[in-house]
Amino acid sequence: MVIGHECAGIIEEVGSEVKSLEVGDRVALEPGISCGHCSLCKAGSYNLCPEMRFFGSPPTNGSLAHKVVHPAKLCYKLPDNVSLEEGAMCEPLSVGVHACRRANVGPETNVMIMGSGPIGLVTLLAARAFGAPRIIITDVDVQRLSIARNLGADETVKVSTDIEDVDTDVGKIQNAMGSGIDVSFDCVGFDKTMSTALNATRPGSKVCLIGLAKTEMTVALTPAAAREVDVIGIFRYRSTWSLCIEFLRSGKIDVKPLITHRFGFTQKEIEDAFEISAQGGNAIKVMFNL
Amino acid sequence: MVIGHECAGIIEEVGSEVKSLEVGDRVALEPGISCGHCSLCKAGSYNLCPEMRFFGSPPTNGSLAHKVVHPAKLCYKLPDNVSLEEGAMCEPLSVGVHACRRANVGPETNVMIMGSGPIGLVTLLAARAFGAPRIIITDVDVQRLSIARNLGADETVKVSTDIEDVDTDVGKIQNAMGSGIDVSFDCVGFDKTMSTALNATRPGSKVCLIGLAKTEMTVALTPAAAREVDVIGIFRYRSTWSLCIEFLRSGKIDVKPLITHRFGFTQKEIEDAFEISAQGGNAIKVMFNL
Amino acid sequence: MVIGHECAGIIEEVGSEVKSLEVGDRVALEPGISCGHCSLCKAGSYNLCPEMRFFGSPPTNGSLAHKVVHPAKLCYKLPDNVSLEEGAMCEPLSVGVHACRRANVGPETNVMIMGSGPIGLVTLLAARAFGAPRIIITDVDVQRLSIARNLGADETVKVSTDIEDVDTDVGKIQNAMGSGIDVSFDCVGFDKTMSTALNATRPGSKVCLIGLAKTEMTVALTPAAAREVDVIGIFRYRSTWSLCIEFLRSGKIDVKPLITHRFGFTQKEIEDAFEISAQGGNAIKVMFNL
Amino acid sequence: MVIGHECAGIIEEVGSEVKSLEVGDRVALEPGISCGHCSLCKAGSYNLCPEMRFFGSPPTNGSLAHKVVHPAKLCYKLPDNVSLEEGAMCEPLSVGVHACRRANVGPETNVMIMGSGPIGLVTLLAARAFGAPRIIITDVDVQRLSIARNLGADETVKVSTDIEDVDTDVGKIQNAMGSGIDVSFDCVGFDKTMSTALNATRPGSKVCLIGLAKTEMTVALTPAAAREVDVIGIFRYRSTWSLCIEFLRSGKIDVKPLITHRFGFTQKEIEDAFEISAQGGNAIKVMFNL
Repeated sequence: MVIGHECAGIIEEVGSEVKSLEVGDRVALEPGISCGHCSLCKAGSYNLCPEMRFFGSPPTNGSLAHKVVHPAKLCYKLPDNVSLEEGAMCEPLSVGVHACRRANVGPETNVMIMGSGPIGLVTLLAARAFGAPRIIITDVDVQRLSIARNLGADETVKVSTDIEDVDTDVGKIQNAMGSGIDVSFDCVGFDKTMSTALNATRPGSKVCLIGLAKTEMTVALTPAAAREVDVIGIFRYRSTWSLCIEFLRSGKIDVKPLITHRFGFTQKEIEDAFEISAQGGNAIKVMFNL
Repeated sequence: MVIGHECAGIIEEVGSEVKSLEVGDRVALEPGISCGHCSLCKAGSYNLCPEMRFFGSPPTNGSLAHKVVHPAKLCYKLPDNVSLEEGAMCEPLSVGVHACRRANVGPETNVMIMGSGPIGLVTLLAARAFGAPRIIITDVDVQRLSIARNLGADETVKVSTDIEDVDTDVGKIQNAMGSGIDVSFDCVGFDKTMSTALNATRPGSKVCLIGLAKTEMTVALTPAAAREVDVIGIFRYRSTWSLCIEFLRSGKIDVKPLITHRFGFTQKEIEDAFEISAQGGNAIKVMFNL
Repeated sequence: MVIGHECAGIIEEVGSEVKSLEVGDRVALEPGISCGHCSLCKAGSYNLCPEMRFFGSPPTNGSLAHKVVHPAKLCYKLPDNVSLEEGAMCEPLSVGVHACRRANVGPETNVMIMGSGPIGLVTLLAARAFGAPRIIITDVDVQRLSIARNLGADETVKVSTDIEDVDTDVGKIQNAMGSGIDVSFDCVGFDKTMSTALNATRPGSKVCLIGLAKTEMTVALTPAAAREVDVIGIFRYRSTWSLCIEFLRSGKIDVKPLITHRFGFTQKEIEDAFEISAQGGNAIKVMFNL
Repeated sequence: MVIGHECAGIIEEVGSEVKSLEVGDRVALEPGISCGHCSLCKAGSYNLCPEMRFFGSPPTNGSLAHKVVHPAKLCYKLPDNVSLEEGAMCEPLSVGVHACRRANVGPETNVMIMGSGPIGLVTLLAARAFGAPRIIITDVDVQRLSIARNLGADETVKVSTDIEDVDTDVGKIQNAMGSGIDVSFDCVGFDKTMSTALNATRPGSKVCLIGLAKTEMTVALTPAAAREVDVIGIFRYRSTWSLCIEFLRSGKIDVKPLITHRFGFTQKEIEDAFEISAQGGNAIKVMFNL
């Protein structure tokens, strides 16, 4: 099976009824094709469509290919000042944008982000673009925290993976923030990160669960409920491409620092790319260019 | 310490600046006094005020007394056709009303309620008054289910306490409902009830956690998040008394069937009342009358 | 051109790909076909689609015919206890339902309705079904007010058509209501009705403009804005049929009293029907049955 | 009577129970004292309080004075990098901030502003800070348009005062914007500006009426309602000072270019200041410094 779901490309051919695109157009691709007819699609929540066909999700082949056939309405034209590489980054960025929309992030929302991996970092960029005045980000790795700070985090906090440290970590986070945390994003999804997020967030607010590391969780859900801290689920995104492209066009978001490695699309280079990606290290996003 | 926080009574004396009440007025009492100055109070979420003084929550004495002193603005006048007993029921009913407001229950919201104890039953009455077209309620006890059906539940489902039965119970619930469940209220708060609620509720919807039986919970939170089923915490209520009184006045809600036992306020009767209440059995609400 | 846009009927034939309907099904028809592709359609506001083709709006023929061809997704099956006549009433009722949704009417919303014609009356029925605790309705005609009271209005107020009487009429309305008016629906759309609605409604609330009698209006818009009374525009409806049918099925709304005259579908009877409808008098809805 | 309601100053004395302020603190003053008890105050809409006492609104004296006595909770401490002059600008800026909040301006809201006077300009700054991607502003005066462009407007359009030109002006505005206008702010409040705003704004959106130039308006309200363009009233502001100060502290908003003239607080200078302000010309905000 072909994998891959973050991509952009150049139109080679269009169907006879397509009016929105021409051969040669540079486009970013939204990877999921929803049914359009179920109650979730009709309500606009098409990311939850049970009939979704999504690049690289079996049995649908992915986009790591020289050519793909895709519906015109899921191909978004890129402005001249947005590169194909940046266009491909609309996919991970969309996760952060969707989360910020669901959490209603704005100029009065102080934000905490658990995890400084790629999803944590795009959530950081999105929260900034939605106007969050103050953003704190955590990780177990100081190098990742340093990247997050360079990307605009106001504060960074090194946390542990030990569930016994929840209270200590909450204390560190609240000290660093200095005021209430209005919205937390758990971009990891372990008992430890979720427990920390639930305890650190102010009463009457929200924790968004984005990272899906673990099926079952053991967390202090009841005390959170008794403080009316809601848990908001985040699954992919919906209707985000136009906004992502506008963020890139206007310069409100710069995704280029997230692209740490580039490869051609030959057998040898592909193998090297997966090797580097698997090693972790300082790789954030590894890009193939035809 | 004096316990008790569900009460109504007759005004015996008012402060010199009180204009809203007169001696002899029949009133229902909202039991919590919030600070009025913190950011949560100013935002209207006074139920989350960290300085709350609440009848019967140490160190604040409760209302199981011949007389109490209470702020005028927390004493709500009762219409002629609403009795003191019904007025006292505004307190538990407020929990259901607050939950329905937070879950945005209306004429298009199919509802499931886990648990047919007093809180489950007031949530049933509230959901009906907010216009829920179809309500299903569960319990482990068939007698309680029968009471729930008499109070207006469309369907009742007997469930088990065994965590292994989650899938079976979800199947029974979904069969009985016949269509998607838009909002679930967990009025119990065990791993089993919460797991059932998370799995049975349709994608893109809400589970309200009202019952606070257990601090830590082990539940499949991640699959729920991946279906964007949000967990909404419910703590007591805010600004609910006027609406509860209007529901009672108009007859949209009848709380009288919930009052199963009545006692006078003598030493002997008080002991009997606690005895009956502790036995469970068919007691729902046990009322003292002076 | 054929006119008519309120109808229900029996399926005679279905397209080869239609799975939701069978020959013999009794259905209510939603009359407008939107493009499905524009930004308004995609956002769910398909009632505002600039490409809308609507029964009886030139150049689209209407439904006053023995047979019509219509998309399956706009044909809604009727339950056994809802007649075809009631099904046809989903169309006008939808206007009231859409208005109540946009105005967020619920159990805490005291409502005023200007005008007791067919649209005023369906708005009354809808507001009641959405839980409005207290509804006041106005008209220039006492007979119409009497119908409104029989349909469930709590208070009725006779108003004048003279713009000089705005203050007097506002006084009468506020006296009759006894408390603040949270939402007003102007189902007429003259300077007089709109001025009355703007002045009578409490600060921080809404006036819905439903009646479209006049293009230009001269009204005291600025004082209303200075009380943050918003003017909410209402155009037809969107996604209302399922809810209307549920209201009819459950008995929360009974539209039968609005059907005052019935005719067969012969030349002679059609002429009589239009005659009666044009006379006004006590005709509310005049129905043709095949 | 003393006039003036835009001010900041230094605390000289505090009441015995005041804990939030100390002598010497630099503060910006919110000018209106609401009752705190009415239903509007309790709902957070205190700007609509019927008992409001507001600097310079008879019979309440204003703040153009050497000293004023004011409630501690309406005195907001200024950070070191925000001057007293900037602090005084929180008052007009609050109007723009309140309007953007009510209109729900964010990163997906293309904005039009009618009028480039002081309120138009603060609305421009606020809309930018709330993330509006594209802002167009109009005026009859090209010099004012030039100021607006320097403050960050993407497009400026010279309009006329002639009601006959509405269609022409709408055409110019829509050409300049190039895409739909999601929210319009009428910061003038004449028939001409409101008509232009109603016609230029896309279906399903909002026109905020901020400028209160005229009591009665003659506008095409019905066609706007038929496109579900809502009219949102704006009166002063509520709970805006903290956000304004944060915008000034972070540099997201720079109000200094709006302060065009400065005077001391002597008889002679006061007369000169009013003279200059009355002339209009290039004066935007004229500031007195003690």
